Amino acid sequence: MSLVIVGSVAFDTIRTPWGKRDRIVGGSGTYFSLAASFFTRPKMVAVVGEDFPPEVIDLFKSRGIDTAGLEIRPGRTFHWEGHYGYDPNQRETISTELNVFRDFRPVLPNSYRDANIVFLANIDPDLQDSVLAQVRRPELVAMDTMNLWIASKPESTWRVLKAVDILFANDEEIRMLTQETNLIKAGRKILAAGPRLVVTKKGEHGALLFGKKFVFGVLGHPCEDVVDPTGAGDSFAGGFLGYLDKVRKFTRPEIRRAAVYGSVLASFAIEDFGIERFKSLRPDEVESRFRLFRRLVSF
Amino acid sequence: MSLVIVGSVAFDTIRTPWGKRDRIVGGSGTYFSLAASFFTRPKMVAVVGEDFPPEVIDLFKSRGIDTAGLEIRPGRTFHWEGHYGYDPNQRETISTELNVFRDFRPVLPNSYRDANIVFLANIDPDLQDSVLAQVRRPELVAMDTMNLWIASKPESTWRVLKAVDILFANDEEIRMLTQETNLIKAGRKILAAGPRLVVTKKGEHGALLFGKKFVFGVLGHPCEDVVDPTGAGDSFAGGFLGYLDKVRKFTRPEIRRAAVYGSVLASFAIEDFGIERFKSLRPDEVESRFRLFRRLVSF
Repeated sequence: MSLVIVGSVAFDTIRTPWGKRDRIVGGSGTYFSLAASFFTRPKMVAVVGEDFPPEVIDLFKSRGIDTAGLEIRPGRTFHWEGHYGYDPNQRETISTELNVFRDFRPVLPNSYRDANIVFLANIDPDLQDSVLAQVRRPELVAMDTMNLWIASKPESTWRVLKAVDILFANDEEIRMLTQETNLIKAGRKILAAGPRLVVTKKGEHGALLFGKKFVFGVLGHPCEDVVDPTGAGDSFAGGFLGYLDKVRKFTRPEIRRAAVYGSVLASFAIEDFGIERFKSLRPDEVESRFRLFRRLVSF
Repeated sequence: MSLVIVGSVAFDTIRTPWGKRDRIVGGSGTYFSLAASFFTRPKMVAVVGEDFPPEVIDLFKSRGIDTAGLEIRPGRTFHWEGHYGYDPNQRETISTELNVFRDFRPVLPNSYRDANIVFLANIDPDLQDSVLAQVRRPELVAMDTMNLWIASKPESTWRVLKAVDILFANDEEIRMLTQETNLIKAGRKILAAGPRLVVTKKGEHGALLFGKKFVFGVLGHPCEDVVDPTGAGDSFAGGFLGYLDKVRKFTRPEIRRAAVYGSVLASFAIEDFGIERFKSLRPDEVESRFRLFRRLVSF
C-alpha cells in the first residue's frame, strides 16, 4: 500500500496560555505525515522555502516519510501565527504569510501516482482537484477543508467533496458546508453527495463518524496538559489513514480502530508545542494509549 | 434500597428553534424522578402551588414515584422561562418566578429518612445541607449545583460538596468551582475535597467521570432531533442513580453502566418538549438504546 498526503509544511508562531513559540515547524502535511509514520511510510507533497531547516527534512526521512514530493523553492516558507485561549477549541489567526505557498502547484513524482490512499489536507480545493487528476486509481481518497474555502470557493469545495470517500471536518465546517445545524442531518447531506464516511472532529470531545448505516464515536483523551492544540486534526487524520494504509482493509471494524488511532495520535500531538512530542514518541506508547482508550469507554 | 430526590417541580416556558411551549411541567425533581422510575421507586421531595395539575401527580404515582414528600402549598408553582439557540448547550434564562419555591424548606417524611441514596438537585446549598441533616445513614449522596450558587454562596456550596460522594456538574460549573480551566486538574481538586466521583456533564458531547484512579467517558447519543434540551442533566442523574439504586452495588463496572443509562435517559428526554417523551417511553426502548450505546463506542 501507499499513502500520499498533499498539504502544507510551515512555520508556526503560536501563543497559548501555557507559553509562546516563534517560527516552529508545523503545517498540515507535517503533522499528518509524522502521525501516519507510526503505521506506514507516507509520501509527502508540499513546498517549503530555502529557509526551511534541513534537519527537519532529515527528521521526516528518519521517520520513513518519503520527501520526493517536497519541493524546496527560492523564497520563504509559509508562516502562520495563531493564538489560543483557555478553550483549546477556540483559535484566532493573527497572520498568514503564504510566501512560497502562494504559487504552490502540487506535482506528484511518478513514484506517487499509484497511491492507494490519498489525503488532501486543507488547501485550496482547486489544488486538491489537480492532485486527484494526477493519481491513477486510488482506493480511498480523503479530504479536509476549512471555512475559508467553504466561503470563498463553495463550488470547488463541493466538486472535490463529491469525488472523495472520506471528509474530515470539524462540526462548524460541516454545518457551514451543508447549512444544516443538526450534525446528523448535515452528515446525511454530505453522504448523499458522494463520500462514504464523514468524520466530524470535535476537538477535546473527540470525533463522530457517520456512514450510510454506520455511526461510531471516539472520545478525546482526557488530557491534563493541552500545551498546544495545533495540528491535532491533522494528526488525527494521519493516525487514521496511516493505520488503514497499514492494515489494507477498509472494513467497519478497521475503520473503528483507525478512528481510535487517530484520536491517540492527536492526543500525543497536543502534549507539547509543535511536533516536539512526535520526536520522542515510541510505538509502545501509541499501543498503550490505544488500550487506555478501550478501557476509557468499555462498559 | 431507596432513593430520595430533593429538587424542583415547576412550570417551564420554553422556546427552541423547533417551537415554543407555555407553562409545561418541568423541574429538576420531575425529570430526575421520571428517569429514575425506569429502575426504582424514587421518593420525591419538592413543593408545588395549588395551580399544579393533579393529573401530573397521578402520572408520578403511576410511574411508581413516591410523592409523600411533595408538598402542595397555597400560591403558584415555580415558573422558569428559557430560550435555546441552535446550539443546545447554550441557554438563556428569560425569567424566574420562585413563587411557592421561595419559602421551600424541605421536610422529609419519616419514611424517607432511611434512604440509601440521596440526590440533592440544583437548589440553594443551605437547603441541600438541611436535607442531609434529615437522613440517617445514606450510603451514597450526590449533588448538582449551578453557577448562581457557586457565585452567591461559595462557602455553602463547598460545605455540601465536602459531604457528598458524587458531584454532577457541567464543565463550566466545575471550572468555576475550582478556578481551574483544565477539567482533569479541576476534577482532582474536587476529589481532594471529599467526593469519590466527579461526573462532568458535557451536553451533546456526553459525560466524563473521574475518580481517584478511575476515568470513564460516555458519549451523548447522536440525536437527529434535539427538540428540547431542558432536563437532560437531571434525566442523566436520574438514570444514573436510579440504576445504582436498582443494582445495589457501587462497583466500578456498575458505575460505568449507570453512566450509560444516564446518557440513555437524557437522550430520550430531549426528543420532545418537557416530559412528553417519558410518558410513552417503554423499558425495552431503554434497553435497546443501551445496547446501541455499546455498539456506538466498541472497537
